[in-house]
Amino acid sequence: MSTPTQKPSVVYGRPVTTDGVPNLYSGTEVQPWTTPDPGIDNLGISSIDTFAVPGVGEYTVPFDGYVRVVRSQPTATEWANAEVYTNLIEMRMTGESEELGRITVTLNPECLSAGQIRTPFDPYAGEGPAAKACRMAVGAIFDMPKLGLQLINKEPIILTIDDVRQIPPAGSPGKGQIYRMLPLHDIRRPDDDPVAYVTSLRFTMGGYLPKEQIA
Amino acid sequence: MSTPTQKPSVVYGRPVTTDGVPNLYSGTEVQPWTTPDPGIDNLGISSIDTFAVPGVGEYTVPFDGYVRVVRSQPTATEWANAEVYTNLIEMRMTGESEELGRITVTLNPECLSAGQIRTPFDPYAGEGPAAKACRMAVGAIFDMPKLGLQLINKEPIILTIDDVRQIPPAGSPGKGQIYRMLPLHDIRRPDDDPVAYVTSLRFTMGGYLPKEQIA
Repeated sequence: MSTPTQKPSVVYGRPVTTDGVPNLYSGTEVQPWTTPDPGIDNLGISSIDTFAVPGVGEYTVPFDGYVRVVRSQPTATEWANAEVYTNLIEMRMTGESEELGRITVTLNPECLSAGQIRTPFDPYAGEGPAAKACRMAVGAIFDMPKLGLQLINKEPIILTIDDVRQIPPAGSPGKGQIYRMLPLHDIRRPDDDPVAYVTSLRFTMGGYLPKEQIA
Repeated sequence: MSTPTQKPSVVYGRPVTTDGVPNLYSGTEVQPWTTPDPGIDNLGISSIDTFAVPGVGEYTVPFDGYVRVVRSQPTATEWANAEVYTNLIEMRMTGESEELGRITVTLNPECLSAGQIRTPFDPYAGEGPAAKACRMAVGAIFDMPKLGLQLINKEPIILTIDDVRQIPPAGSPGKGQIYRMLPLHDIRRPDDDPVAYVTSLRFTMGGYLPKEQIA
């Protein structure tokens, strides 16, 4: 099961329409330094997340799964000036740890997870065209049935990819920009104290997946 | 004029009640390594923010003003294990730049700006008791009348203070944890492309202010 975003009450960026936008799967060709037409990218993703549970311990869990990302029409045709807006419309990653059991990460339907790809204001020096920066603000649900918990973040998780030379940035490593700790709340008691924290998140975007691999 | 938060639709952390919580002004004594009773801290603040406007330029603006922060009952009496939850209930900072004109920053009443003070999971090595980490997720309005714009952030601005040895951390320097750029949207068109970005934010918490200085 996946969690498409529907009528979210919290909107982390610019909404992007999926109307008439084609799904893209394995076999899609990606041209570097080129602004593509709008599409829904069905991509693999893996991640290594560290969770801290106060008084209990810190647990590092590898995750694997897929994301579906809708991309807007680029704001310009040439690479240098183009901005592309993105919404994460589906995510499903699973991981397992002895202590926390099996964990499934999906999108929080209360949130519109949104981002963009643009030339940064502090570009890295380098040869050739300027690489872009990709960022996405994400609201997720961490389902931990062994602990009887579904955890949500109330600050978005900021996922970033640097040195983007093609859209989508398949194969690129990325990072969750977590400063020391990101609070996670019990979905049943979101106004109570956080029950756990994400203290580190590193991910890698995979390539296009075959349609059969998207549940 | 200030902007108290009222019935926000976006809640970035744990709500903290202001019911029966006393306002604290100049003259309040602060004990290091001690967990204080709940209070509303009326504190000075200064900040240096850099704004990037695509295709126009980057502008660094110094701000000065005050914040009002309500603190919860600490979760423990001894310093080491105590967590304190905070809500930013009022903010007013003003700055001026030749190009952008006068800028006033207040809280976005659509957002509950929330944070906490706790011992981090990655404490700095040092002598004496462990210093705490302070974080606050903020939704703000940047009013720029010269440009006819009110800008809002849709991802919270994460303000952090490290090496916290007293509550409140008056006099401490802090940082906005902005990775490369934080999008700002026109409040009249929040679902459109961002119109500007914050690319850097450094601040310093001031001390308690006299009551007369809080508007």
